[in-house]
Amino acid sequence: MTSKEPYTGAVCPVENDPQSRITLGHGGGGRLTRDLIETRIRPLLGNPFLNQEHDGAVLPNPGAPIAFTTDSYVVTPLFFPGGDIGTLAVYGTVNDLCMSGAIPKFLSLSLILQEGLEISTFESIMQSIKLSAKLANVQIVTGDTKVIEGQGDEAGMFITTSGIGITVFDPPPSPFRIAEGDLLVLNGDIGRHGTCILALRDGMEFETEIRSDCAPLTDQVQALYQSKYRINCMRDLTRGGLSAAVVELARSGGWDIELYEPEIPVLAAVQSACDLFGLDPLAVANEGRFIAFVDARDGERVSQVLAEQAPGAVRTIGRVIGPDKGGQVRLRNAYGGERILDLYSGEQLPRIC
Amino acid sequence: MTSKEPYTGAVCPVENDPQSRITLGHGGGGRLTRDLIETRIRPLLGNPFLNQEHDGAVLPNPGAPIAFTTDSYVVTPLFFPGGDIGTLAVYGTVNDLCMSGAIPKFLSLSLILQEGLEISTFESIMQSIKLSAKLANVQIVTGDTKVIEGQGDEAGMFITTSGIGITVFDPPPSPFRIAEGDLLVLNGDIGRHGTCILALRDGMEFETEIRSDCAPLTDQVQALYQSKYRINCMRDLTRGGLSAAVVELARSGGWDIELYEPEIPVLAAVQSACDLFGLDPLAVANEGRFIAFVDARDGERVSQVLAEQAPGAVRTIGRVIGPDKGGQVRLRNAYGGERILDLYSGEQLPRIC
Repeated sequence: MTSKEPYTGAVCPVENDPQSRITLGHGGGGRLTRDLIETRIRPLLGNPFLNQEHDGAVLPNPGAPIAFTTDSYVVTPLFFPGGDIGTLAVYGTVNDLCMSGAIPKFLSLSLILQEGLEISTFESIMQSIKLSAKLANVQIVTGDTKVIEGQGDEAGMFITTSGIGITVFDPPPSPFRIAEGDLLVLNGDIGRHGTCILALRDGMEFETEIRSDCAPLTDQVQALYQSKYRINCMRDLTRGGLSAAVVELARSGGWDIELYEPEIPVLAAVQSACDLFGLDPLAVANEGRFIAFVDARDGERVSQVLAEQAPGAVRTIGRVIGPDKGGQVRLRNAYGGERILDLYSGEQLPRIC
Repeated sequence: MTSKEPYTGAVCPVENDPQSRITLGHGGGGRLTRDLIETRIRPLLGNPFLNQEHDGAVLPNPGAPIAFTTDSYVVTPLFFPGGDIGTLAVYGTVNDLCMSGAIPKFLSLSLILQEGLEISTFESIMQSIKLSAKLANVQIVTGDTKVIEGQGDEAGMFITTSGIGITVFDPPPSPFRIAEGDLLVLNGDIGRHGTCILALRDGMEFETEIRSDCAPLTDQVQALYQSKYRINCMRDLTRGGLSAAVVELARSGGWDIELYEPEIPVLAAVQSACDLFGLDPLAVANEGRFIAFVDARDGERVSQVLAEQAPGAVRTIGRVIGPDKGGQVRLRNAYGGERILDLYSGEQLPRIC
């Protein structure tokens, strides 16, 4: 698995070489902090805004309403098939802006590093942030670095990204715009990110490697915007998966929603992993999947627009059926049976994103 | 020390009551996460933007260039005389926006909680965030909550705040606008925050309790803006203290700067603590102090404007003397001697903010 290479330590075999690991001094605001920024962050991420060398970035007048979001990423392990904590930190925040109906523009990057983190690992993740930001067409314009006590070879890092996007949908999609009859369009198969992390942690191998679906949604959402079809709400299916997203949205506006289980795509390897671990694929985290609530008249055409951009199978998986039960989500299986979906109490997996 | 009360556990004596502590499930995106947000965050911080119940907040068109900044706060202990991690997280980010020449408007709040954190501690900090945000006249409009493995009774939390402000200074103050002859005006005595934390960690008591200077700079900066005097650059004196701030700014533009040590106010208790711990008060972190680089003609009047707002002693502590040495900072003492200031290599104190 090439994406795990930075863990092998092959690049920096001298374990206690202070040059090869992050120390508390790198977070002290003195010369080590400046050197870390000047040699290992700014050359990769630099742009005119980041280079203002100030406490914050001054950005041009957006001339439109803006979307603003934040997420902390604490995933362990740091590297996984299909991505790493850096791709997650960029795409996760980019995707939240997309879901708000905005085109992502600017990110902030705040790092909490554990003492003892390999500098080669740090550099791999900075590279990954650079490439992800380029792919998602955003600039990292401001940041911060702190160092906390580590746990030796387990030393990791936490990343918080915040993002600013310029809203393009007018009015912006919102949970409060969901309406009776809306169709729920899903942009691909679900359950990959969560099962990928779990399989990796448990050292399980499946016939087909499960790769995280971690990806930016910018192109898909931009295509939806340009299509001018009526998108009432969008939500990405991260922690808690498809079921948490739909249950929360159903409750926001008090709308009952029906989901069709046979229409929800799940890869065979993901289903096997879920069976083994006793997980419900509907409740497993994704990092590149979302549902759009679409006016019924436009459902088919929205699916076509998405199918041109999305890498996976686009499906209409449900419908807003009315207000009778005040926000109930029913899952109908292939045999006509149904069950009520609810939020799981805790989580299936800690530190998954 | 009333600000330390949440540590005593008096409110939640039953140590293993799951209701009284944060669990990994609170970060899982399920029912526990929702309950934490709905019962312990939203009722305190709620406002129309936060209540959009979406992945991000949609904010009105700012109609002007915006400032954007981020900082992670990892201070330990969580509570200290004069503040706590919550006040720090609000004021620190608010102050960075002020230094960029902006009026702070919106904050995001991303929490990384350690499993085992007392819920009563969490609530105290949320209260503190609420009050600080009110005092600094900003709204918390979006957020995130994650939970990581804890360390039993040592369980703490990390907070990352990002902020958006509307720039009012035109052109905005910047390290690149510093000019020969500029006076350096300081808004109060230095070294409190760092020595306060260190004294607390070491259980030291001084005749006079050292309180952190943690405070929002909004009113002071707004008064400067309204005065229309020419402020070329502002910088708050956080990690690395006064000396790191001045050294970095001197290097940004290659300007030599002279500082007058007798003019730099240091409280007697702070000086005693520094003598005991072997610290240089000029390099100790502050959380409510800044320097303004002011056109020489306006120096006196800027001091007067600040003196009306600032709680401490306002002083002109130095001058930009020219480009000859390419960015050297000289500290002149009362006897005419001088020494060159440089960045310290690491840090004097880890996890100070």
